[in-house]
Amino acid sequence: MSEAVEGEPVMRVLLTGFEPFDGEAVNPSWEAVRALQGWQLPALAGQHGPAQVHARRMPCVFGAALQALDAALAELQPSLVIAVGQAGGRSAFTPERVAINIDDGRICDNAGCQPIDVPVVAGAPAAYFSSLPVKRIVQAVRAAGLPAELSNTAGTFVCNHLFYGLMHRLAQPEAQRRGMRGGFIHIPYLPEQAARLPGPPPAMALADVMAALRLAVQASLLPGADLQASGGALH
Amino acid sequence: MSEAVEGEPVMRVLLTGFEPFDGEAVNPSWEAVRALQGWQLPALAGQHGPAQVHARRMPCVFGAALQALDAALAELQPSLVIAVGQAGGRSAFTPERVAINIDDGRICDNAGCQPIDVPVVAGAPAAYFSSLPVKRIVQAVRAAGLPAELSNTAGTFVCNHLFYGLMHRLAQPEAQRRGMRGGFIHIPYLPEQAARLPGPPPAMALADVMAALRLAVQASLLPGADLQASGGALH
Amino acid sequence: MSEAVEGEPVMRVLLTGFEPFDGEAVNPSWEAVRALQGWQLPALAGQHGPAQVHARRMPCVFGAALQALDAALAELQPSLVIAVGQAGGRSAFTPERVAINIDDGRICDNAGCQPIDVPVVAGAPAAYFSSLPVKRIVQAVRAAGLPAELSNTAGTFVCNHLFYGLMHRLAQPEAQRRGMRGGFIHIPYLPEQAARLPGPPPAMALADVMAALRLAVQASLLPGADLQASGGALH
Amino acid sequence: MSEAVEGEPVMRVLLTGFEPFDGEAVNPSWEAVRALQGWQLPALAGQHGPAQVHARRMPCVFGAALQALDAALAELQPSLVIAVGQAGGRSAFTPERVAINIDDGRICDNAGCQPIDVPVVAGAPAAYFSSLPVKRIVQAVRAAGLPAELSNTAGTFVCNHLFYGLMHRLAQPEAQRRGMRGGFIHIPYLPEQAARLPGPPPAMALADVMAALRLAVQASLLPGADLQASGGALH
Repeated sequence: MSEAVEGEPVMRVLLTGFEPFDGEAVNPSWEAVRALQGWQLPALAGQHGPAQVHARRMPCVFGAALQALDAALAELQPSLVIAVGQAGGRSAFTPERVAINIDDGRICDNAGCQPIDVPVVAGAPAAYFSSLPVKRIVQAVRAAGLPAELSNTAGTFVCNHLFYGLMHRLAQPEAQRRGMRGGFIHIPYLPEQAARLPGPPPAMALADVMAALRLAVQASLLPGADLQASGGALH
Repeated sequence: MSEAVEGEPVMRVLLTGFEPFDGEAVNPSWEAVRALQGWQLPALAGQHGPAQVHARRMPCVFGAALQALDAALAELQPSLVIAVGQAGGRSAFTPERVAINIDDGRICDNAGCQPIDVPVVAGAPAAYFSSLPVKRIVQAVRAAGLPAELSNTAGTFVCNHLFYGLMHRLAQPEAQRRGMRGGFIHIPYLPEQAARLPGPPPAMALADVMAALRLAVQASLLPGADLQASGGALH
Repeated sequence: MSEAVEGEPVMRVLLTGFEPFDGEAVNPSWEAVRALQGWQLPALAGQHGPAQVHARRMPCVFGAALQALDAALAELQPSLVIAVGQAGGRSAFTPERVAINIDDGRICDNAGCQPIDVPVVAGAPAAYFSSLPVKRIVQAVRAAGLPAELSNTAGTFVCNHLFYGLMHRLAQPEAQRRGMRGGFIHIPYLPEQAARLPGPPPAMALADVMAALRLAVQASLLPGADLQASGGALH
Repeated sequence: MSEAVEGEPVMRVLLTGFEPFDGEAVNPSWEAVRALQGWQLPALAGQHGPAQVHARRMPCVFGAALQALDAALAELQPSLVIAVGQAGGRSAFTPERVAINIDDGRICDNAGCQPIDVPVVAGAPAAYFSSLPVKRIVQAVRAAGLPAELSNTAGTFVCNHLFYGLMHRLAQPEAQRRGMRGGFIHIPYLPEQAARLPGPPPAMALADVMAALRLAVQASLLPGADLQASGGALH
């Protein structure tokens, strides 16, 4: 039973996508996220109040991505942050389990910078776990007939950089006090990207990515702990 | 410029899909093909007359598939036949180049039969090449932003069996005289199938498969030779 | 029980490998084949007489490869011919089932030529099946603890070109009368190649390729039909 | 120039491998490690003293693996510990960058236990980075003509469990004071395993794994920091 209460404050959900990189003309993360800009979720009685999605585009640049994140956090004061990025070659919608404190660029970022083995945040913990209900998300997306899988590595490029920076911010006392949740989800190429690449690599239709992201937002707004379901990897 | 001429005969296009096999609940080939049942293509001036799609479902059974094909050919007398089948694990829409004269079942067919190294048609040629404009199809599908690739093997299961049987029928004098064209296209899993499989394997949305099939039909109705474009494989 | 009979003629086994192509410094097919040059197989009582391996290197050039093959056939008059080629990206030793009558270069050959959809031999059959006991070979190699698999496509590059040309020669009456057997086997990259490539792709150690080739030669010298064992592919 | 100094203490190098799991009859990690048991490395003047390898087999069981590690550490007081594990499906020798504080079994361990999302060590850091020179190892193995790649996830099964437990022990003050180094390396299937699996998956010959492990030990004994070389992953 869902009902909006007069005057109930609207929770802000920040979804971030990235600008294109690695020679691509589009980035599926930004295409999907911007298509959800303004999406209003009604309150779910006993679970959460009404919410609205705000989409922001991040530069694919070490450092500048975190500045853009800071600006969006300051502007929106969101309750939930889901950062989204392109994982070319993956075949599924993949919530990330863990962000690691390292920048190690296999290629240059969009500003031409290629850091090697430097921490995202000097002196900070080696890793943070996502505070999204990653297994509930995987379960919900699969139940909707779309491929989803938990990932145990977000790489060491700007995606992991943004993810780590986000989790570091969410680990600070003020964010903890406010109960902010956040994490990162990697998504496959769009069909139009795969169509131009050798292989071709797997792809996921934009409408399917959008549907999966909606389910991820809904699952992340529910209170309580994550599912107790196996999502591990042998290696 | 497209225009239907009064009284101009409507060409029949036969699209076949398969029933589910290998433990699956659906077969994307039948889902896509039946969704195109009745599709009417207007005449394309100077190129071809009006056409209409007829969808038929084939059993995933050696022998019986060819009987079903014969029944459909006799009933419809089509000008164009495109047989479609599921290629679980492929990431692209893949027109097949060649059918080979061998049945060699890695698994049992839906009637429990597993032939090993017997010819589809005893005494017939070792192989037939598709008479679809396979490279034109690949080009058209890619241009529409969907992954497509020429395949050089349709395997040795019921898909190749039907493909070979079809090409053998099209090689007979009466079919040659009538200018019948035909071939086979393999398609990826649907997302709802991939969502339940380990990996998961690549998938293609049903709407995208349908769009690609429409382009394949349109390309195949055009008169003339196939594109001169590289579509080869090193191995 | 194996024993050489005084004066018994020695059967000649021709193994061909290719020169490097596609930017590689070595070709594993030639490395493996030349290492078997001169290998003498004793007679196997009741099965076959003594045999000796002759290795020849083929240019990776359409047309010239068949000229080199013709020269080797004329010189050696072999009873058995196994052509070997590199299949970069494959993980197993893969005897090929079928050669198709088409040249379609994805890249240029070593002479800069890139034929598109022309027959290997104009007017000849669409395909030939290998006359090697491909399933017996796969079984023997696996039993020795090495990955092997039947392949249903040799591609459309110089490997298939040589394979088709070989089988066309073996289909001629004189070769048929002499009972010549032949076919093609694709092999993975060597570890030293894979070490320099992104991914990296799978590899097979040279000693393992050589062991597998020895088993292939031994299996191919046995008289009689191939195994009745499933080796098919769904697509 | 290498020379052993009379009376110079011999550094102990602990290599661990695992017992077989997941239905396999062998585990390549134990096969490779036990073949290096007793290997003596001479001193390298100005770099390190003489060293000797001690191989120990670990149970593929959560908890019990760490007890076995503790016993080996107490017995040997090693200067260097390299734990090795099977990563079925990988094509390269892959030093792991980071261990994460989570047990999440996709399958049961050899004692039938399948923990879900519990920490390896409650209250301990979310992750530890390897203290092996992982990039120097990758470079040395590739230079020897063998495929190697840095990995950013060791999974969430017993391999990561042992890796995390090892790094937690090495992070304690006494181990830090002694300058102990350690980490984890995942290796592919052996050819004999791949030969029995569908696909087949990539494999690496035992001799090649042993050669790579020797290089990893040598690189890890060198003093000083790791290479400044890109080894990152986009995702």
